[in-house]
Amino acid sequence: MNVLVVGGAGFIGSHLCDDLIKKGYKVYCMDNLSLGTRANIAHLENQGAFELIKGDASDREEIEAVFAMAEPEYVFHLAANSDIQASASSPDVEYRNTYTTTYEILMAMRRHGVKRIFFASTSAVYGEKKDVLLSENTPNLSPISYYGAAKLGSEALISAFTYMNDMTALVFRFPNVIGPRLTHGVIYDFIRKLKLDSSKLEILGDGKQTKPYIYVKDLVAAIASLSNIDSNVEETGVRLYNVGVEGATSVTAIADILCEEMGLCNVKYEYTGGEGGWKGDVPRFTYSTEKIRAEGWKPEYNSDDAVRLTVKSIIGV
Amino acid sequence: MNVLVVGGAGFIGSHLCDDLIKKGYKVYCMDNLSLGTRANIAHLENQGAFELIKGDASDREEIEAVFAMAEPEYVFHLAANSDIQASASSPDVEYRNTYTTTYEILMAMRRHGVKRIFFASTSAVYGEKKDVLLSENTPNLSPISYYGAAKLGSEALISAFTYMNDMTALVFRFPNVIGPRLTHGVIYDFIRKLKLDSSKLEILGDGKQTKPYIYVKDLVAAIASLSNIDSNVEETGVRLYNVGVEGATSVTAIADILCEEMGLCNVKYEYTGGEGGWKGDVPRFTYSTEKIRAEGWKPEYNSDDAVRLTVKSIIGV
Repeated sequence: MNVLVVGGAGFIGSHLCDDLIKKGYKVYCMDNLSLGTRANIAHLENQGAFELIKGDASDREEIEAVFAMAEPEYVFHLAANSDIQASASSPDVEYRNTYTTTYEILMAMRRHGVKRIFFASTSAVYGEKKDVLLSENTPNLSPISYYGAAKLGSEALISAFTYMNDMTALVFRFPNVIGPRLTHGVIYDFIRKLKLDSSKLEILGDGKQTKPYIYVKDLVAAIASLSNIDSNVEETGVRLYNVGVEGATSVTAIADILCEEMGLCNVKYEYTGGEGGWKGDVPRFTYSTEKIRAEGWKPEYNSDDAVRLTVKSIIGV
Repeated sequence: MNVLVVGGAGFIGSHLCDDLIKKGYKVYCMDNLSLGTRANIAHLENQGAFELIKGDASDREEIEAVFAMAEPEYVFHLAANSDIQASASSPDVEYRNTYTTTYEILMAMRRHGVKRIFFASTSAVYGEKKDVLLSENTPNLSPISYYGAAKLGSEALISAFTYMNDMTALVFRFPNVIGPRLTHGVIYDFIRKLKLDSSKLEILGDGKQTKPYIYVKDLVAAIASLSNIDSNVEETGVRLYNVGVEGATSVTAIADILCEEMGLCNVKYEYTGGEGGWKGDVPRFTYSTEKIRAEGWKPEYNSDDAVRLTVKSIIGV
């Protein structure tokens, strides 16, 4: 069966391609290679079942050409700007790469009669809700980042397109996802800083920002387990799940794990102060994953484990 | 004070312009005149305090020119495709006229440091929720029309832009709005059909689709009452309200009122059958307006009154 992974050369997308190839699908990977890299999928490019198409999914002609050629039966949509901090100063990136990609993918599915989509959404759709256990039934979603807004807008599009065109959609709201091939974020930044100067580490905020981190392979297993790729009979509509892990890890705890794994003992932490690390960041949240656990999925690694594994994979120990 | 009404030549926008001019503001009205008409604002065009600018708010250069010239302190954003039935076959209209207008208006506000916006949202953001009294706290918003999706996406943008740029936003979710200058919808269609042939009336669905209809002047009074145009000290963030009326009116009841007011006695109703009138329509809903009533606003007319007044204004009795 032909499947299309949009954003398939990115951090999460490339791990999903690995899994889909292993399971025997013919995988078309569309990526604009702005955040995704050929290095992420280099090991797949010599396989006949894998095809990379460089292209921009927000461009109608380019996505149309991909649909016409790949004739996918299932679309995995992971194309987005994933660097929230960067888009704070240029919202156009989210308008084009996060929202418009979703719109044009859905329009292409509508034109080609493709009925099934997986969509990578985010905990950022909730906004900053202090002392609320975030579940799929939490009301008043009020994103505080352009990224969260574009993802919530995308979810709204999926709701309408699904209804109007008898499609079925699986939507996961990811928390922070980490693992090999990570391209940005706090772990990535800390390693970069410590490699430049291992005597001190600047930490944005008060270091108490605490979030659940999921290991990318756990996440891919969740996608594989719930996407029912081979099933032909499915109800139309949207199935939406929070995907998460046990526990959460503070920024200071991340620094501690990192120093330990890098064998650094006397790193001086320098806090910039304040609550959040940067505007649009949600400093702490807890996530209900009861609904997806009821489907039989659970992650292998907790949040601290995920951080440690990721650190090891990046520093190469 | 200079205010900008985007979509000001439209049905609701033109009534809002009337009110703002009466209150002494300098009103810049931007409209692409696709659904709005010069006829709607002809009576304002000879007033010095009113200026019409024909332009497309989804075009960055055009909206930039308007902001540079008008230097507004308050923006009323009512630009949208308002014909849900029409956009079912061409979602691009919603992408451009409903979502992108919001995005470009917010981007212009961000560039020019304009801090205050009123946004016309809709009950269509909720989707079809049977037997639920829709309140601002209803969870799982799942629009079933491209229009509802573009409006929910716009609300998400307003949430993020407000937070990131210290803006303040007033958002109203309108139910069906009716009154003089109406350009489409069931009342408009019925009158058109009866003028062609008064012996029968085709009614989409089973006629039991029942919705609250608010009279446009009541709605404008609500906007005026809660927008605090002259206040300089306001908290940042979004204030969001359902705006609605007492009661609801079925499609058959609308036909009855219409026949009565037009003096027609023997009109044969021909039902096409089924629940909703057309795909993407939400056949019935009830609306909690407790929150806005707590602010001291209440409508003068109930839903049936609003229908009757509108019929009278259109047929000219």
